Amino acid sequence: MKSTTGRSAIGLDFGTESVRAVVVSLTGRELGSAVVRYRRGQILDRLPGSSHRLPPNFALQDPRDWIDSAAAAVRIVMKAAQRAPEFVVGIGVDFTSCTMLPTKIDGTPLCEIPTLRGNPYAWPKLWKHHGAIAQTNRMNAVARQRKEPWLARYGGVIGLEWFFPKILETLAHAPRVYDAADVWLEGGDWFVWQLVGGDAKQLPRSTCQAGYKALWNAQTGYPPRAYLKAVHPDLADVVTDKMPGVLIPPGQRAGVLCETMARKLGLAAGTPVSAAIIDAHAGVPGAGVSEPGTLVMVLGTSSCHMLNATRETLVPGVAGVVKDGILPGFFGYETGKAAVGDAFAWYRELVGHRDFKRLDDAARKLPPGSEGVLCMDWFNGCRTPLMDGSLKGAITGLTLAHRAEHGYRAVLEASAFGLRWIVDLLRGGGVPVKKFVATGGLPHHNPLLVRIYADVLGEDIEVHPSTQGPALGAAILGALAAGSARTGFESTADAIEQMAGRARRQSRLVRPAMRNVKAYAPVYRKYRELAAEIAAT
Amino acid sequence: MKSTTGRSAIGLDFGTESVRAVVVSLTGRELGSAVVRYRRGQILDRLPGSSHRLPPNFALQDPRDWIDSAAAAVRIVMKAAQRAPEFVVGIGVDFTSCTMLPTKIDGTPLCEIPTLRGNPYAWPKLWKHHGAIAQTNRMNAVARQRKEPWLARYGGVIGLEWFFPKILETLAHAPRVYDAADVWLEGGDWFVWQLVGGDAKQLPRSTCQAGYKALWNAQTGYPPRAYLKAVHPDLADVVTDKMPGVLIPPGQRAGVLCETMARKLGLAAGTPVSAAIIDAHAGVPGAGVSEPGTLVMVLGTSSCHMLNATRETLVPGVAGVVKDGILPGFFGYETGKAAVGDAFAWYRELVGHRDFKRLDDAARKLPPGSEGVLCMDWFNGCRTPLMDGSLKGAITGLTLAHRAEHGYRAVLEASAFGLRWIVDLLRGGGVPVKKFVATGGLPHHNPLLVRIYADVLGEDIEVHPSTQGPALGAAILGALAAGSARTGFESTADAIEQMAGRARRQSRLVRPAMRNVKAYAPVYRKYRELAAEIAAT
Repeated sequence: MKSTTGRSAIGLDFGTESVRAVVVSLTGRELGSAVVRYRRGQILDRLPGSSHRLPPNFALQDPRDWIDSAAAAVRIVMKAAQRAPEFVVGIGVDFTSCTMLPTKIDGTPLCEIPTLRGNPYAWPKLWKHHGAIAQTNRMNAVARQRKEPWLARYGGVIGLEWFFPKILETLAHAPRVYDAADVWLEGGDWFVWQLVGGDAKQLPRSTCQAGYKALWNAQTGYPPRAYLKAVHPDLADVVTDKMPGVLIPPGQRAGVLCETMARKLGLAAGTPVSAAIIDAHAGVPGAGVSEPGTLVMVLGTSSCHMLNATRETLVPGVAGVVKDGILPGFFGYETGKAAVGDAFAWYRELVGHRDFKRLDDAARKLPPGSEGVLCMDWFNGCRTPLMDGSLKGAITGLTLAHRAEHGYRAVLEASAFGLRWIVDLLRGGGVPVKKFVATGGLPHHNPLLVRIYADVLGEDIEVHPSTQGPALGAAILGALAAGSARTGFESTADAIEQMAGRARRQSRLVRPAMRNVKAYAPVYRKYRELAAEIAAT
Repeated sequence: MKSTTGRSAIGLDFGTESVRAVVVSLTGRELGSAVVRYRRGQILDRLPGSSHRLPPNFALQDPRDWIDSAAAAVRIVMKAAQRAPEFVVGIGVDFTSCTMLPTKIDGTPLCEIPTLRGNPYAWPKLWKHHGAIAQTNRMNAVARQRKEPWLARYGGVIGLEWFFPKILETLAHAPRVYDAADVWLEGGDWFVWQLVGGDAKQLPRSTCQAGYKALWNAQTGYPPRAYLKAVHPDLADVVTDKMPGVLIPPGQRAGVLCETMARKLGLAAGTPVSAAIIDAHAGVPGAGVSEPGTLVMVLGTSSCHMLNATRETLVPGVAGVVKDGILPGFFGYETGKAAVGDAFAWYRELVGHRDFKRLDDAARKLPPGSEGVLCMDWFNGCRTPLMDGSLKGAITGLTLAHRAEHGYRAVLEASAFGLRWIVDLLRGGGVPVKKFVATGGLPHHNPLLVRIYADVLGEDIEVHPSTQGPALGAAILGALAAGSARTGFESTADAIEQMAGRARRQSRLVRPAMRNVKAYAPVYRKYRELAAEIAAT
């Protein structure tokens, strides 16, 4: 192995309100970390400089914020790291998704064109933008009607937050904006394109974003023209006319840093840049997980579970299976729950307890099954496996003897049952699931949740010590993009082990208690019956 | 009409914690009212003078308390009324039911016999005593197996709180007590027997208690020997051997006050005494209701709905139809809900809001249907129509956007939907339901509830101004027992009109809003679907 003394990689983690930058040495030492908020944050009510209210369900961002906040964050961390720019071997970028935008052929966002600046549809739509309800329904109906074979890859349902429904929404409501767009692309891809520069024909699109959010797969590409035409005649040629670029897996080189952006960021021109990755998915390498069969759970307001497998198996209800979607060489599986930390916070608000500790203590003392209280936590719809945002939550089995803590524990248990359902589904479909790693902020704030997860699954859970997994994961991908000659890493697994292995070995292992595992078996069956009842109404 | 100047009647209303006495003039003026608590209250944990814990689900009372508290209350009200005892034309008694006890042949409660005093089964079991779960199941199973025809009269189900399961419980757990009992009888009947004295063969049993709680009906009497024998060989002859007495409808004379009790109460020996009535049922005359087709709802922690009809129709799910059960000359129907005020208090406790007004205000502003939140209020099981104490409550349709007030309104709406179900059932079975009178404390504390009841039923509701209906009802029955020669009342209806008509005419009328009536129709259908789902699991 060559000496890599002093060499490091930069990870940029673009979130909903802010961007985080980290500088990490190739030996896994974090040399600097900084979070810089976006000046405009989320644009939810009014466009900047406008007094008109946005339509309901709108959630936009300003692409200037991405550049400005990233530049500020990189300058801060480079100063903290006390490294010359030449020691940075590569840059990785993770981004919320599907956050997407229309641009001109040179990459200029339409919202920066004065004649379009006042039109909300010219702005980047944030992942959580929910304006495309009718369009999502239309796309699903046409796909089902035509029995489109690629639909199985997405668990049989196109999501409301995905790429094509968001395009179709603009076509339907703002055809002038649609016509003015030369390029439709993901925010992460746009940022990487800005970093590396170059022609739109070569703009680097991530297989991760394309695979999970834009109905793309390595075998058959994007949905066929005939389908898109059936959805809307003017959408027929959107792929060939308005989606130029090349598809590159995360961890492979998208290009090298251009002069313009090198000056903005204070880095060296020519530094290799990885293709982008979805923020949650960056948590897999970030958690030190390179092996297939390990479910990495990012637990926050919602949850996202990622898993690599060596073979592709389509499992009904599993929304995304993408070749090279998370790490090169594997089939990446993504599943998730729409309300996790959000659901707990909502319940605590409902019961008027802001004293988390008291409620938590009382819930901890209850036996598995919450003395008969059973919850369905579809308070924000169901992501995996039913992919139905209209489904609602419920709390059942209630008697006058139950108190606030019974419902609280039942909400935690519902979260665990939902996870078990997903794991059963994957295993039943032939996808090996062998280990469990919990990351994100929630496992640290809520150890009872992890205890219940372990007991309901009957499996050990590693609670990863870091809460900044995605930014580290992005840095690892940046290092991979630099190539083994520069880093000395022999493989993807080696890079992950060198840069994130030590932290993973500091995980706290939560083991199931067999008495509780047994006690949960009949409660889980009741949960599944409740799910079937609610889904049927 | 003869002059009735100064004449009055006494009503005694025996509750769970205390007895209320009222003196009411024959013109309907309340001359005095007093509540005296029982010294021992409910006996829930330990027998008086004992350190042994009672078995779970036990709830007992001390018959000495009934005598002592009633004597104190009557002396207080007579003093307040400033009437000589001779002006009291009659005495009426209402009582919680089924509160029952075993006695010796002379009426001495077994719990007053030194050798039995330490045995919990020798004590009166309060209505809410729930020790007879296994025995209730046994009696229902045998009745269903034998296709007992009288079961239809009770909606197809024998209740956990009824007379025979409580006897069987003692036979099963304390055969020595069972053997020592010469007489099994209701607390109300025991108290009336104490008032009038006399031989056990003539002890006055109320058709009301017998009909609603002891499987008796005027046509075929108590359950047949063959059924009781099939339940338990030693129970075969309980009716002939251990249930002496004569059946007398409320409002008919059980006898006249004996010397002993006249001295205790400070009243005149020879004063006529009515047969007892269940406390809730006394609320019908107490509310000024004498006409058939008016549903009198006593709304408190639970609810009890009484209705008189001119014809007998057996309706599946309606627990009791008793000839002369409420008022002489009618078939009395009883239905009810097991958690009403209890359910609202429980929910308010759950959500940590002790500020009733704020929650009430917020719930009032929500539209019918609580923006999708739907509740099943079986938090204490389901009384009418499913008669199943094991059923549980649920709150469904929940999303992260819902707040505490949504669930609260949904609980109120569930209460209304449950009432509508009962009304639909009665009408569908051919029992006319034309008017609605709400009594008890709850309608005054919770006007939003009455508003929702009106909107869900699509009917006017009279909110009766008095919260002391049962005691007044008992007084009216006392006056009826005196006979028309002494009171001048031409009929039962005339007595009710004279003594309780004025108060009823002061009822507040709550009319339904047609827009809301329409809005509730589809929500009610969903409620019925939810009920079917929960009952099926």
